[in-house]
Amino acid sequence: MSNQVKYLLDENDIPKEWYNIMADFKNPPIPPLHPGTMQPVGPDDLGPLFPMELIMQEVSTERYIEIPDALRDIYRQWRPSPLYRARRLEQALDTPAKIYYKYEGVSPAGSHKPNTALAQAFYNKKEGVKRLTTETGAGQWGSSLALAGAFFGLEVEVFMVKVSFEQKPYRKAFMESFGATCHASPSNLTEAGKAILAESPDNSGSLGIAISEAVERAVQRDDTKYALGSVLNHVLMHQTVIGQEAIKQMEMADDYPDIVVGCTGGGSNFSGIAFPFLGEKLRGGKDIEIVAVEPANCPSLTKGRYAYDFGDTGKMTPLVKMHTLGAGFIPPANHAGGLRYHGMAPLVSQVVHEGYVRPTSYHQTECFAAGVTFGKAEGILPAPEANHAVKGAIEEALKCKRDGVEKTILFNLCGHGNFDMAAYQNYASGLLTDDDYNDQELAMALAGLPKVA
Amino acid sequence: MSNQVKYLLDENDIPKEWYNIMADFKNPPIPPLHPGTMQPVGPDDLGPLFPMELIMQEVSTERYIEIPDALRDIYRQWRPSPLYRARRLEQALDTPAKIYYKYEGVSPAGSHKPNTALAQAFYNKKEGVKRLTTETGAGQWGSSLALAGAFFGLEVEVFMVKVSFEQKPYRKAFMESFGATCHASPSNLTEAGKAILAESPDNSGSLGIAISEAVERAVQRDDTKYALGSVLNHVLMHQTVIGQEAIKQMEMADDYPDIVVGCTGGGSNFSGIAFPFLGEKLRGGKDIEIVAVEPANCPSLTKGRYAYDFGDTGKMTPLVKMHTLGAGFIPPANHAGGLRYHGMAPLVSQVVHEGYVRPTSYHQTECFAAGVTFGKAEGILPAPEANHAVKGAIEEALKCKRDGVEKTILFNLCGHGNFDMAAYQNYASGLLTDDDYNDQELAMALAGLPKVA
Repeated sequence: MSNQVKYLLDENDIPKEWYNIMADFKNPPIPPLHPGTMQPVGPDDLGPLFPMELIMQEVSTERYIEIPDALRDIYRQWRPSPLYRARRLEQALDTPAKIYYKYEGVSPAGSHKPNTALAQAFYNKKEGVKRLTTETGAGQWGSSLALAGAFFGLEVEVFMVKVSFEQKPYRKAFMESFGATCHASPSNLTEAGKAILAESPDNSGSLGIAISEAVERAVQRDDTKYALGSVLNHVLMHQTVIGQEAIKQMEMADDYPDIVVGCTGGGSNFSGIAFPFLGEKLRGGKDIEIVAVEPANCPSLTKGRYAYDFGDTGKMTPLVKMHTLGAGFIPPANHAGGLRYHGMAPLVSQVVHEGYVRPTSYHQTECFAAGVTFGKAEGILPAPEANHAVKGAIEEALKCKRDGVEKTILFNLCGHGNFDMAAYQNYASGLLTDDDYNDQELAMALAGLPKVA
Repeated sequence: MSNQVKYLLDENDIPKEWYNIMADFKNPPIPPLHPGTMQPVGPDDLGPLFPMELIMQEVSTERYIEIPDALRDIYRQWRPSPLYRARRLEQALDTPAKIYYKYEGVSPAGSHKPNTALAQAFYNKKEGVKRLTTETGAGQWGSSLALAGAFFGLEVEVFMVKVSFEQKPYRKAFMESFGATCHASPSNLTEAGKAILAESPDNSGSLGIAISEAVERAVQRDDTKYALGSVLNHVLMHQTVIGQEAIKQMEMADDYPDIVVGCTGGGSNFSGIAFPFLGEKLRGGKDIEIVAVEPANCPSLTKGRYAYDFGDTGKMTPLVKMHTLGAGFIPPANHAGGLRYHGMAPLVSQVVHEGYVRPTSYHQTECFAAGVTFGKAEGILPAPEANHAVKGAIEEALKCKRDGVEKTILFNLCGHGNFDMAAYQNYASGLLTDDDYNDQELAMALAGLPKVA
């Protein structure tokens, strides 16, 4: 029996800077538009929602942005996170491929999300904010912001997509243990929520709706700002600690990936692992393949349109150029709640559009099967979202076996599945289904995309 | 805001030997007795249950027993585990005490149990065993043995105490994801289970009953052995990697505990942290205090009798000299399922009896309150069992505050509470109660203790 090989960095190897991929783009990033004027959004437009330091990070084109020491001190609780060579998985698959995974489940909330939650709480606290509102899908983001709120003494109010709220009651208990409040979305607490409930009282919610509610609550109070767990440039940038560490760890292993795999919902964990490697490629480094794996029933990259769209259902956010299924698209109920978003981060969309990233999609039951195979070999049951990355990596490894080639595959295991055992239970009992989206509903949502010149 | 300080050892610092406290005992350990002959048990008597290498460890009085390299290789997935200085907790309590905790929740099963599960699976595999049976309370042990079974290709059959089986369905899903089978105990699969169900069909189970069932299944088949997650000498010894690492980590911190705190059910995580320190004390080292914290409604150390008793309800196991509430004692339903055992490890009982360890007990709601205080400060919600250690450590820290003394407190955080959010939810909703045991039932169970000369 082979075992994993663990590559552990020293605390001094926690990155001192975040990496900003915009600095290495051949084409400039495409600006967001103000929903009223349809003109590019300036920093001041974002003032009611975010503290100024995060806004400056959002629009920066500097390649590196310093991570405050006080924040690196907090990261030290679990960073640098381990990188493993999955020898037992390789053996189980009988593949000539070498499989590595970066494991973000060691964070106190069990996923990569605290990397940005703590950063956002840090800057909000610094600017005197008292209260943060946010949305959450599966609950990983809400849990992470609740934790950050407890550390920094900020109140946190979370709007959780109703279908996940009902599937995962323990996530609410987790957030509340850290002192946060958590509402099922759509709720009766906001105009956006009320409007949707009036139209469809049984609405199961979506990230787009929850964002509308959280944004509405934030703009109502001066001492309150909004925090987003993915999609935005600064959020993706905070996650680049993952890939920067992985580059050093691959050096320790005296190896370099041929293929980097991540799962995509809003795009944050994917960017975290992929952008530092893609940056090296853009600056003339090795011509690696990068694979983004999304759920087949919420396929923004593989079936969406690359167009300007709203980030939320209530059309309160700026418009961004992204791969989108339309802000009105409600994905089928799906345990990989963190991947149920109608759009995709503009930066991820742009690198997909420009051909640097290959998008692919899988159904959830085949992803759970991959997760169980991984778990038996490596001892970790992944979060349902992470199962998509596992599936993507296993497919690449099996292709290596068919082709008889030894490639090096690296994927991001963005979180553990400890809070998702109900889904594993359903999977084991054959109760998990692959509900597809409705073609007609998708066509309607796409037809509703805003007309932008 | 202060942050934790993390003390991380190198992989080469994973202990190369287990520590056997029997070598340092002033008085010899008290031998187990055969239930038929009432004579001391010899190695051969244990042959049907355990592989010979584990039996030799059980009776060894060597101070150190080598850890096989192949096993250290597996430990490397998460060992050495981190030791933290809980500065944020100290600040929250406003105590002059210094609080350190060793964190065993980083293991793939989320607790200290894999330290011995993997060791036991290793030796069973080596001797050609195909199948292991075991009992589990809260599910941490069953999960860990399931994991070990997956790693070593052994079938695993788990009897889970019914009350926990019903409270924690996700533990079953976890075990089954690793390929194990899991039954609620008492079950109809064994004579021991059938006898109890015939008498009390609604019996909520106990570790003592589940042990009877697992032992019965193991002796029925030649290719099957039994594995126990606590109580036995060799199991406690496997856990001493915890305390041995902690000694090195306290050196890194240039500190040494005045007080070591652990929670006790069967005694394994407590021994893991405490025995290496107690060994130093017995060999003339610093005269530290050692505190064992047990649940007030299953108080073997504080209210039990130090006497020979059976390890199981069905009276199939050898008799051991221990603090016991009587093998017939059924503790009230209690979320800290891992601490619901009528007895206590003989080695722990002996050091308590000889005055080296101070036992104490707390009710579960005050332990949950301590866990939430800890979680908000340190970012980790402990397992309900571990909350007892947290409570014990916080009480010592508050005593330091009252007395105005700066002591160094070290406790073992033996597992995270990710699988116990239902209990946290109940605690937050005020639904968690402190059901006490029935005095009359305890008196009856004690009256039923076997008469041994």
